Amino acid sequence: MERQFDAELNALNEKLLHMARLAEESVALAVSSLKNRDEALAHEVFKRETAVNLLEIEVDEVCMRLLALRQPVASDLRFITSAMKIGSELERVGDLAVNIAEVSVDLLKHPPLKPLIDIPRMASMAQGMVKDALNAFVNRDEALARSVCERDDEVDSLNDQIFRELLTYMMNDQSTINRSVGLILIGRHLERIADHATNIGEDVIYLVKGKTIKHHIEEIRRESAAKSEAE
Amino acid sequence: MERQFDAELNALNEKLLHMARLAEESVALAVSSLKNRDEALAHEVFKRETAVNLLEIEVDEVCMRLLALRQPVASDLRFITSAMKIGSELERVGDLAVNIAEVSVDLLKHPPLKPLIDIPRMASMAQGMVKDALNAFVNRDEALARSVCERDDEVDSLNDQIFRELLTYMMNDQSTINRSVGLILIGRHLERIADHATNIGEDVIYLVKGKTIKHHIEEIRRESAAKSEAE
Repeated sequence: MERQFDAELNALNEKLLHMARLAEESVALAVSSLKNRDEALAHEVFKRETAVNLLEIEVDEVCMRLLALRQPVASDLRFITSAMKIGSELERVGDLAVNIAEVSVDLLKHPPLKPLIDIPRMASMAQGMVKDALNAFVNRDEALARSVCERDDEVDSLNDQIFRELLTYMMNDQSTINRSVGLILIGRHLERIADHATNIGEDVIYLVKGKTIKHHIEEIRRESAAKSEAE
Repeated sequence: MERQFDAELNALNEKLLHMARLAEESVALAVSSLKNRDEALAHEVFKRETAVNLLEIEVDEVCMRLLALRQPVASDLRFITSAMKIGSELERVGDLAVNIAEVSVDLLKHPPLKPLIDIPRMASMAQGMVKDALNAFVNRDEALARSVCERDDEVDSLNDQIFRELLTYMMNDQSTINRSVGLILIGRHLERIADHATNIGEDVIYLVKGKTIKHHIEEIRRESAAKSEAE
């Protein structure tokens, strides 16, 4: 019985890893389609979407079954609820890759605005975060999860920089407006992918430590306790 | 014992309703700050963010406790896992309201681009969807949940219209670029709020029917079954 439960948890791990690989690949393909001006790569992203969506549902179904039949407690319970959350984060990463691919298909109708450097860099940062967040989950590696959360600021500031640069482009030459807005949206999508990786990192820390670090909750609760003591 | 469990489930309902009210209010305040050019309203949104975040964590904590201690099955289990998902959807609605308020603060430094009509309309559509999705959850009202999901397309097409209109503004007068991009981003944020309401609607349908409608899963599975039969 115990052993079968372990096997089920392992199968769940595998499903999430598979999902993460597909999601990461989709991000890479979407940005490559733009960088290499290859629309076929964007269509590869659209193909992968269904697979990612189905995996999300399968993860959910497995988790519900485990919750109902195994009635897990403590760390097994946290593992299963974290798996559900991570499944939905990965599904959104897949969605955002589709959003990027859609903008890319549109941008490929026009000549390139400029050689792309920062967007591919941002994409590989975001992909690395997704990958590491899942590895942190599988290996219950708190340090790696924390490093994912820390990298989020870098992605945000790179996105701000891209945004400002593209605004300048548009101001200087209004024939670039359409393309610049497209690239701004892609920057946003990549920023959100990094946010989802960060959410997964936070889920992993919760899984390992048994308490949440989301929203700087400990500080807020400490402050509010100090405040009510002072009153 | 049973009665106490019911009381706990009711308390969970109340927490989610409270969270939904705060999130809706934040959306309304963020858009009002822009429409009425009142920065103080944007700061009200920032204040509410912590409350929404804390509620998300509380919802999660209550759900984890109920899962561990009550070991619910069937519809109670679905209720609790749906509550966790809805909590995180509402937290994101709150975040997006903050994103809108941030853009608004920035836009208020410049003269208005034009009288705002479509963005407030889109905001009230998105707010209505969040509100109805939560009412559908509390009353297990499948028809209302479906109507929320159906309204998503309207919000999307309104957003497309706003987007195209703002592109035209920028093309015609490049002094409007900064402001137009700000409004485009607000349109996107509102569109995402409607997406989160739709996700909640899907969760409610799952709760009531015991099976998911996400990603048109039934069609996909029917097609793939037909395919393997044909082989």
